[in-house]
Amino acid sequence: MGPAFVFEQKVLFRHCDPAGIVFFPRYFEMINDCVEHFFDEVLGWPFEELLLDQGVPTAEIKTRFAAPSRHGDRLSLAMHVTRIGRSSLGYRIEATCGTERRFEAETVLVHVDGQGKPASWPDAIRLKLKEDGS
Amino acid sequence: MGPAFVFEQKVLFRHCDPAGIVFFPRYFEMINDCVEHFFDEVLGWPFEELLLDQGVPTAEIKTRFAAPSRHGDRLSLAMHVTRIGRSSLGYRIEATCGTERRFEAETVLVHVDGQGKPASWPDAIRLKLKEDGS
Amino acid sequence: MGPAFVFEQKVLFRHCDPAGIVFFPRYFEMINDCVEHFFDEVLGWPFEELLLDQGVPTAEIKTRFAAPSRHGDRLSLAMHVTRIGRSSLGYRIEATCGTERRFEAETVLVHVDGQGKPASWPDAIRLKLKEDGS
Amino acid sequence: MGPAFVFEQKVLFRHCDPAGIVFFPRYFEMINDCVEHFFDEVLGWPFEELLLDQGVPTAEIKTRFAAPSRHGDRLSLAMHVTRIGRSSLGYRIEATCGTERRFEAETVLVHVDGQGKPASWPDAIRLKLKEDGS
Repeated sequence: MGPAFVFEQKVLFRHCDPAGIVFFPRYFEMINDCVEHFFDEVLGWPFEELLLDQGVPTAEIKTRFAAPSRHGDRLSLAMHVTRIGRSSLGYRIEATCGTERRFEAETVLVHVDGQGKPASWPDAIRLKLKEDGS
Repeated sequence: MGPAFVFEQKVLFRHCDPAGIVFFPRYFEMINDCVEHFFDEVLGWPFEELLLDQGVPTAEIKTRFAAPSRHGDRLSLAMHVTRIGRSSLGYRIEATCGTERRFEAETVLVHVDGQGKPASWPDAIRLKLKEDGS
Repeated sequence: MGPAFVFEQKVLFRHCDPAGIVFFPRYFEMINDCVEHFFDEVLGWPFEELLLDQGVPTAEIKTRFAAPSRHGDRLSLAMHVTRIGRSSLGYRIEATCGTERRFEAETVLVHVDGQGKPASWPDAIRLKLKEDGS
Repeated sequence: MGPAFVFEQKVLFRHCDPAGIVFFPRYFEMINDCVEHFFDEVLGWPFEELLLDQGVPTAEIKTRFAAPSRHGDRLSLAMHVTRIGRSSLGYRIEATCGTERRFEAETVLVHVDGQGKPASWPDAIRLKLKEDGS
């Protein structure tokens, strides 16, 4: 497994709920931001181009929340590619604050064409995914 | 398994992304709204009271998205209690639009006290959960 | 001025911030939901149809927050049309909880075509707006 | 008027609506993020400390949206303090993408104590606000 792509996210006011901890749907916005930055910075395929005529919807996501995160916490989301399919991509995100595990997510997304049908990864992207993920 | 608690949610503009389908973190807001209504309407324990000095954070959630949902779709989230622990609660949500499956989620939440420590369900709540869930 | 269109919204967990009150950007989501329901129920022109090839972006909005709203509060957003232009629509929303004023917003939105250019209201819509707004 | 505090925000997938432009309530999340960074970086008073026993709710906000912003646009929010009251703070934000104006907001927030009552700005904060704002 190659090195992780790391996305840093300070917990902001807008992430937090009345208990003063991150409202769990906001974690999925952070995960989406992480993946959006991965496509831009690692694959060189920013979402704003990809989404003009294709898509990468999330097909499944399993998440375990190990400990709550509080306003001001500095989270690191470490993302690893775990499986490259014909049109799918498995990845894993482990989020920590310092040395403490906060949550982990295992996810599958699918590359689709403009009609929403699964579509093979372009060769150049597959190559970069393999460099990163294997 | 008892009858499901059903939460109706039309897909609104604010749920949708540039592809015209529900942005997946918004599904988790819908799931949270469903659980909030379940606590209010089925358990008689509205979040605004529960959360004054206790909490019910989500510990894990596994979600599969079977098909995209579009602006205007009328979703039904059918929620079943699947497991009642000392302080935990497992539930399953199946979301459909008409006869089409859209997503399903299996979730565990935990009842915690004001310090965030797991705390037994009150007897009256456990009783109602059993009536609903078994 | 005709009768108001009233949109009811209980303050839910997802609306609230660490101070236990509505996070102000969430009010704008409520305002958008109110307008979406107005177009559907009063004008018979649901956003999911309108937005297929047209739009109604918000051009300006002035909001005063008179008092905070708490989790569980039952808000009523009363919406009045205040001005019908060639392609614009002015409206006012007053939000109350019981007899207490919570916030008021004065807004202008613009009907645009598929290229984002201002476009005249269809005659049938203008008629309904006048019935409602004058 | 002193130099502006500038907050950079690329328009991300999560900000955008089915028309492919920023959903206007998301602009208010950006504005809140900008103010949160201003308190942290300029005033040395991060929200996560301030909010432990005080608050800075928004009292009013007037916003004009001059042109839509699209996914991938790089926005600069330039924030100026415009008025320092006993317990209030007026500020103005102008958001641009390159040389194009996108929106401007005039806002008033209020410093409140733990009971939600307006409270004078601490002297050290008032001093920093004056340095920045006058």
